[in-house]
Amino acid sequence: MTHSNTIPTVTERLVRWAVGLQYQDIPEEVVQRTTELFVDWLGCAVAGRSHPAVVAMTKFMTQMGPTTGRCEIIDGSLGLTSTPAFASMVNAGSSHVVEQDDLHNKSIMHPATVIFPAALAVAQDISSNGQEFITACVIGYEVGCRAGEYLGKSHYEKFHTTATGGVIGVAAAVASLLRLDVDQTISGIGTAGTQAAGLWQFLLDATHSKQVHTGKACFDGIFAAYSARDGLLGPRDILEGSRGMGAALVPGKTYPEAISRALGAEYAILGSSFKWHASCRHTHPSVDALLSLMKKHQISFEDIDSVVAKTYQAAIDVLGLSGRGETVHQSKFSMGFVLAVAAKKGQAMITDFHENDLADQTLREFQKCVVMEYDADIDSRFPNEWQGTVVVVCKDGRKLTESVEYVKGDPQVPLTRDEIEAKFRALVTYGGITDASKVEDVLQKAWNLRTQKDLHGFAL
Amino acid sequence: MTHSNTIPTVTERLVRWAVGLQYQDIPEEVVQRTTELFVDWLGCAVAGRSHPAVVAMTKFMTQMGPTTGRCEIIDGSLGLTSTPAFASMVNAGSSHVVEQDDLHNKSIMHPATVIFPAALAVAQDISSNGQEFITACVIGYEVGCRAGEYLGKSHYEKFHTTATGGVIGVAAAVASLLRLDVDQTISGIGTAGTQAAGLWQFLLDATHSKQVHTGKACFDGIFAAYSARDGLLGPRDILEGSRGMGAALVPGKTYPEAISRALGAEYAILGSSFKWHASCRHTHPSVDALLSLMKKHQISFEDIDSVVAKTYQAAIDVLGLSGRGETVHQSKFSMGFVLAVAAKKGQAMITDFHENDLADQTLREFQKCVVMEYDADIDSRFPNEWQGTVVVVCKDGRKLTESVEYVKGDPQVPLTRDEIEAKFRALVTYGGITDASKVEDVLQKAWNLRTQKDLHGFAL
Repeated sequence: MTHSNTIPTVTERLVRWAVGLQYQDIPEEVVQRTTELFVDWLGCAVAGRSHPAVVAMTKFMTQMGPTTGRCEIIDGSLGLTSTPAFASMVNAGSSHVVEQDDLHNKSIMHPATVIFPAALAVAQDISSNGQEFITACVIGYEVGCRAGEYLGKSHYEKFHTTATGGVIGVAAAVASLLRLDVDQTISGIGTAGTQAAGLWQFLLDATHSKQVHTGKACFDGIFAAYSARDGLLGPRDILEGSRGMGAALVPGKTYPEAISRALGAEYAILGSSFKWHASCRHTHPSVDALLSLMKKHQISFEDIDSVVAKTYQAAIDVLGLSGRGETVHQSKFSMGFVLAVAAKKGQAMITDFHENDLADQTLREFQKCVVMEYDADIDSRFPNEWQGTVVVVCKDGRKLTESVEYVKGDPQVPLTRDEIEAKFRALVTYGGITDASKVEDVLQKAWNLRTQKDLHGFAL
Repeated sequence: MTHSNTIPTVTERLVRWAVGLQYQDIPEEVVQRTTELFVDWLGCAVAGRSHPAVVAMTKFMTQMGPTTGRCEIIDGSLGLTSTPAFASMVNAGSSHVVEQDDLHNKSIMHPATVIFPAALAVAQDISSNGQEFITACVIGYEVGCRAGEYLGKSHYEKFHTTATGGVIGVAAAVASLLRLDVDQTISGIGTAGTQAAGLWQFLLDATHSKQVHTGKACFDGIFAAYSARDGLLGPRDILEGSRGMGAALVPGKTYPEAISRALGAEYAILGSSFKWHASCRHTHPSVDALLSLMKKHQISFEDIDSVVAKTYQAAIDVLGLSGRGETVHQSKFSMGFVLAVAAKKGQAMITDFHENDLADQTLREFQKCVVMEYDADIDSRFPNEWQGTVVVVCKDGRKLTESVEYVKGDPQVPLTRDEIEAKFRALVTYGGITDASKVEDVLQKAWNLRTQKDLHGFAL
């Protein structure tokens, strides 16, 4: 099957790069970072396994799809396996619960939570090895994050780019594993793009769409790639076409240069950040600035009268939707509550957000004394740089200011291997896994990703 | 589970009506029209069964889902059954191939191709009877078409409303069959809406997204309703919320009054048209006007020098995307080609569009002499009324004009039972079904929908 319209598009340039990429061509630093981000993702997938959205998606799988198959559900306690579309849906949902999965700064999307579950399930299904898996993930990050960058800030005001850019990345990663050619891959990306969806509305009433978005990005992207292999033609110019994603899903400016800029020289995976704090990434610059200020000036939680968090518009837009934060998940999207937790506990790790904290009046009082303020200079740098400034007024009258240029975990200051392992262990403990030797086995298998002949054995 | 935000919304009014609707409350005329539209849909599902998109979606089902289950694939030649999500995906795809499925005028969407396959598969799965099925379909039409009307004309410029309104209708229909309560139904509609997608980009290069859109609207709407039953919370105000469908997917005006206007007094199913011609519905007013003019003035195909088809903006937008019409499907979206076929053959039925016609130079020459022209008066009435005017210049110099107020098949002039049966027989013949007694059995079963105790037995 060929398309009737064969005018080359910028998307086609990106696809030609993707189809041509060999494992041997991937810089060592990129392979290493992919491995680190995979370990990081795996912990997230375990930590979120009991969330009601994940439970409901798992039930949907048992009703609509096979419950035996070649693909693992990372939550091994269920004893379930399935086909790639369903296994990845469940794993993607569970890995986007605890707000600890990675972030690609420039595209404002979380690639790990969609690319890894989809690529892992397909790799398990068709017996890909570690190098094929890494190559597919590098491609998935690249294509998905470039799509997200193309869609830009104004898209992100209403859409969860992790889903809309994510489905494009999933299609590309799976196309790589299935060894689709250029035309088939273009079709897969086109079919992915015409399914792209995911709205922020759920943030307003603390409902469960966030996990639906990542789960369905996997399902839909896998559908796109498999059906492209089997003859279903997708539109060739889904990003830039007159009825494509840019035209329909972007009210403001698109960034076409992002689609094919410096292919093979820049790697999206090296532009991805680890999340250290367990809250919405938009709170992290302020958290880091506040913790740094408190340490520098020897200020305690009780000393603080008020905080102004100077930030970019997208943070105000997203964090403004969650109100007071009525659930643990929603509270991670409240700047005031997150800064309260960080100030009181000295950190904002996964174990620092609990049901009990929601009723802690000292946190709630602190929360009321935090305001976000638009900062034009910080906004002009976003999303290339995620900066933040806090202005703290102390009860003794002192007024102190602190800014951060990079957040802990940013590409410029990534986590160390020890920190990644510590975070992984905290996540699996939070997920209720008690079998330490099993945890070690999985961790070692993940660190040795590139030498794996087979990618089964990651369930915990 | 309850939502933290319980402020009532207009969507909630619509849901309360849906949850409260009993079969006994539905007017006889509505039950009858539902039955007629179901018969009409069934023929379409058979006719499109060999399309490459349907073949690829069926293959996806065999790879990802069960190939035995309680739900029928309407293409009985495959010997496959599956779960509701997959069976409905395939049936929805095949029923949206030949451009003969119904149209709800005011919402510019095709409800049958999404509501019937989803409701049928779920009804088969949980052993609903004919009355429960009819009730669910009436609800699905109502909720889906009202969502489509709310999204309006400017949404339709980029989005295939059959998919975006359709997924909402599917969730509502399935919620009815599953007997979800008000809160669960609201969640289902919310989860459906955050998955709403479907772009017109495929029309530009004659690719296969149209069937993907209907197939995935079923899959995604079923996911939404089942997961809502199982505890997954969806946003309560997905239509009108500040990060909902209206805000994100409508560049122009929304029509909020459509969501809850005259509930129980107006029925969307009575506002749906049968398609008589086998082309894009936007060509129908011009086809009817042209055929009427030719008959009135005794003009033949050869007599015509040029045609101006005066129409509304949405027709120009959609039909303008297909160029010359390089495939049979794309040719049904070319005003010039469709009018050429109608003028030459005296009709534009399913058997009138064949591969051979694409190379017919007399049709191609006629096509070049047709232009579409924007008509402000016609546009002001659209989509409440789908009117058209043609101005024909004859080779002998005569200039003739004809207008139509209603199209054959419109709610004001629906098809007769004989016409519906004739169309059904043509569709199944086109679909290659030769077993006449089986066809009669299925047809009788469909006409007797309301008395069926079980809804299996519609595969052909």
